[in-house]
Amino acid sequence: MDFTLLEALVKEKKFSELQKELHTMQVADIAEFFDILESKMILLIFRLLSKEKAAEVFSYLSIDQQQHICVSVNDQELIKLVDELDFDDKIDLLEEMPANIVKKILANATEVERKLINQFLNYPDRSSGSLMTIEFVDLKKEMNVREALERIRLLGFNKETIYTCYVITSTRVLEGIIELKDLVLAKPEQKIEDLMQRDVIFVGTHDDQEGVADIFKKYDLLSVPVVDQEKRLVGIITIDDIVDVIEQEATEDFHRMAAIEPFDDTYLNTSVFVLAKKRIGWLLVLMISATLTGMILSRYELALEAVVALTFFIPMLMDTGGNAGSQASTLVIRSLTLGEVTFKDLFRVITKELGVSIIVGLALAAINFLRIRFIQGYSLQISLTVTITLFFTVLLAKIAGGVLPILADKLKLDPAIMASPLITTIVDTFALLIYFGVASILLGI
Amino acid sequence: MDFTLLEALVKEKKFSELQKELHTMQVADIAEFFDILESKMILLIFRLLSKEKAAEVFSYLSIDQQQHICVSVNDQELIKLVDELDFDDKIDLLEEMPANIVKKILANATEVERKLINQFLNYPDRSSGSLMTIEFVDLKKEMNVREALERIRLLGFNKETIYTCYVITSTRVLEGIIELKDLVLAKPEQKIEDLMQRDVIFVGTHDDQEGVADIFKKYDLLSVPVVDQEKRLVGIITIDDIVDVIEQEATEDFHRMAAIEPFDDTYLNTSVFVLAKKRIGWLLVLMISATLTGMILSRYELALEAVVALTFFIPMLMDTGGNAGSQASTLVIRSLTLGEVTFKDLFRVITKELGVSIIVGLALAAINFLRIRFIQGYSLQISLTVTITLFFTVLLAKIAGGVLPILADKLKLDPAIMASPLITTIVDTFALLIYFGVASILLGI
Repeated sequence: MDFTLLEALVKEKKFSELQKELHTMQVADIAEFFDILESKMILLIFRLLSKEKAAEVFSYLSIDQQQHICVSVNDQELIKLVDELDFDDKIDLLEEMPANIVKKILANATEVERKLINQFLNYPDRSSGSLMTIEFVDLKKEMNVREALERIRLLGFNKETIYTCYVITSTRVLEGIIELKDLVLAKPEQKIEDLMQRDVIFVGTHDDQEGVADIFKKYDLLSVPVVDQEKRLVGIITIDDIVDVIEQEATEDFHRMAAIEPFDDTYLNTSVFVLAKKRIGWLLVLMISATLTGMILSRYELALEAVVALTFFIPMLMDTGGNAGSQASTLVIRSLTLGEVTFKDLFRVITKELGVSIIVGLALAAINFLRIRFIQGYSLQISLTVTITLFFTVLLAKIAGGVLPILADKLKLDPAIMASPLITTIVDTFALLIYFGVASILLGI
Repeated sequence: MDFTLLEALVKEKKFSELQKELHTMQVADIAEFFDILESKMILLIFRLLSKEKAAEVFSYLSIDQQQHICVSVNDQELIKLVDELDFDDKIDLLEEMPANIVKKILANATEVERKLINQFLNYPDRSSGSLMTIEFVDLKKEMNVREALERIRLLGFNKETIYTCYVITSTRVLEGIIELKDLVLAKPEQKIEDLMQRDVIFVGTHDDQEGVADIFKKYDLLSVPVVDQEKRLVGIITIDDIVDVIEQEATEDFHRMAAIEPFDDTYLNTSVFVLAKKRIGWLLVLMISATLTGMILSRYELALEAVVALTFFIPMLMDTGGNAGSQASTLVIRSLTLGEVTFKDLFRVITKELGVSIIVGLALAAINFLRIRFIQGYSLQISLTVTITLFFTVLLAKIAGGVLPILADKLKLDPAIMASPLITTIVDTFALLIYFGVASILLGI
């Protein structure tokens, strides 16, 4: 977005013109504009927004900015603002704000709401419960279409949450769903009972968000009801939150596959100490594992002394093996995540990787041989030793890369740990063993 | 899903019972069941489905199964099936089917439809045009709410595409949108003109799907109108297709970051030759780049002959440097993709990585020193050489990993090329230069 005009209005203190501009803008764009505002201007500009728009913009702001506003406004403003927030945004806010703010907000809630808030704050992180909202339309199957539409008007939620209505019993047990469009297309006297779908897809309050996202993808849902252990409807999850979950899970996979422990906030908002903590564990494990390569090399100290040239090819062999293995493991890890590969495909993966590694291995080995023998002018024995090692390293790397993530998955470990860093360390070790094995045959050392 | 019952019914040829079971199932589950059917049973079971359900199930099947059905059914069945498909599914099918099937389908389309199909087939791959559907509700601003609801009933689409209605002029130029819920909440005599939102977010037919997905995420949309260059409404894109785009783009990033060129189909459905082709390019480039490390080692041949022990630590130093660099580059590449980091953050990234690398580098170096000096018993000079190299390699790796993706992005290159494989190769080279630099000072070689 281009905010030149807005910035000029701020600079020239033309606040009533600015207010008019803000009035016509999308809330997401206003939130983006807040990102570039100086912090002392945030509250001033925030107060220019209408009550409803303020709450909507607020829910798009970063935690830092939300906190800044909550701390700066007076108590009355705070209570009004919180009052306007959707229930799920309210919960998100309470999770992030300092204790004194939380206290103020809770003090002003009704007892029913306070109980509900506490219940929601207790759902585990990354569970359905922590994602859901309580703003949904509940109907009874005895209603007719006219009564149902009246109830929708009465509840009057201004979000996408009304596109599906939920039919519940007197004890709030979920009985069925009915789409708003079916209500619109039906005759006013038709009974909900005759229109509702009884075969409803639902999730539990403690289900993991990744599984919920998979359900949305499989059934192309816009929302899903969340029920407790007695199948009583407690909330719904909407697709916009699931889009965020999908991105968040992908980000975590990227991080895990680069040997970084997941963290919650964005990279720039995370402190140096937290970032260091999230990285050092695996680096240490991998560094110590790499000691194995040093031990293998020291075992072949005499061979290396006799033919120093053998050393020159170690980095190239290790890098190529590592890269070949990472390619295979990345493909398989991602396919496991998307559910395209499961344990029963193990044999297919092995044959596929065997085929690929023979083609790739032969091509790389041929080019490598020509280069070492004819361009660099090494002896036939050394050229052959390097070339044969390269071929078998690629073969081993691709098969290990394909198989190990599937085995990790089978053992209920996260297959992402078998990504590039660990595969590289494993392949390096075996590459060196192959190297000296071949060398001892061809060079007689 | 558990398909034991269904499989038993197939085996015992109890087709009328099977039909009843299928009737109560979700289409996505039926499609999953087709996945495990023998191919000779597919057509038989497919014919048990009702006309509407058959079309819905069909759109969930894999390309192979769709092709199998299209080739197996008679012409009349084919035409009926295609007739029932949503327009976007029809286009997807035409893009994948063999020429004789396409010819049959087109021969049966009306001239208007044929023209439309050809127009849609011509939109570039991964553009808005290739994602959109023509099933949407178009209204005129002169209508009132009652007329609008009648039009919705008349068009009677059975998908989520009616939750937003589009207001267009007589020349089909997009003027505004109105949500179905607002129609439901409004009075029958109210004018669309007074209810519609005029400030509409829209995309062009040739916009890239990744940008469209970003717009959905930013504004929390359920659908977006697609307009041509004259701002005439030609179609809409719905969130379910965007969810697929988000997954597809993430998959491509995973692949690119592991030095694999992107490919369209799933891993298991892609042939060994295609998989080999997609991997060999980068492996070759990286293998040849790794030659540089060999050249550096050969320059220090005399040093290596004098102190063979120096060789033992090369793999550990290279691996640790590569891992440290990959961590930084993965974090920054993902942040660039999500728009959380841009070029203006370059300096912040450098200071962050500097901070992290000092903490991580010091910790790794300390542990490494203790191990080499006191557990493995190497001389102080060698222990110090390895430790100092380790520290500076981590420093260099993290800063290169943080900076290079941002520079690649600035140069309009895909930052994903600066992921693990290339960073590792770059870091390896510099790690060796540091190693021998430090060794020549401390060991006097």
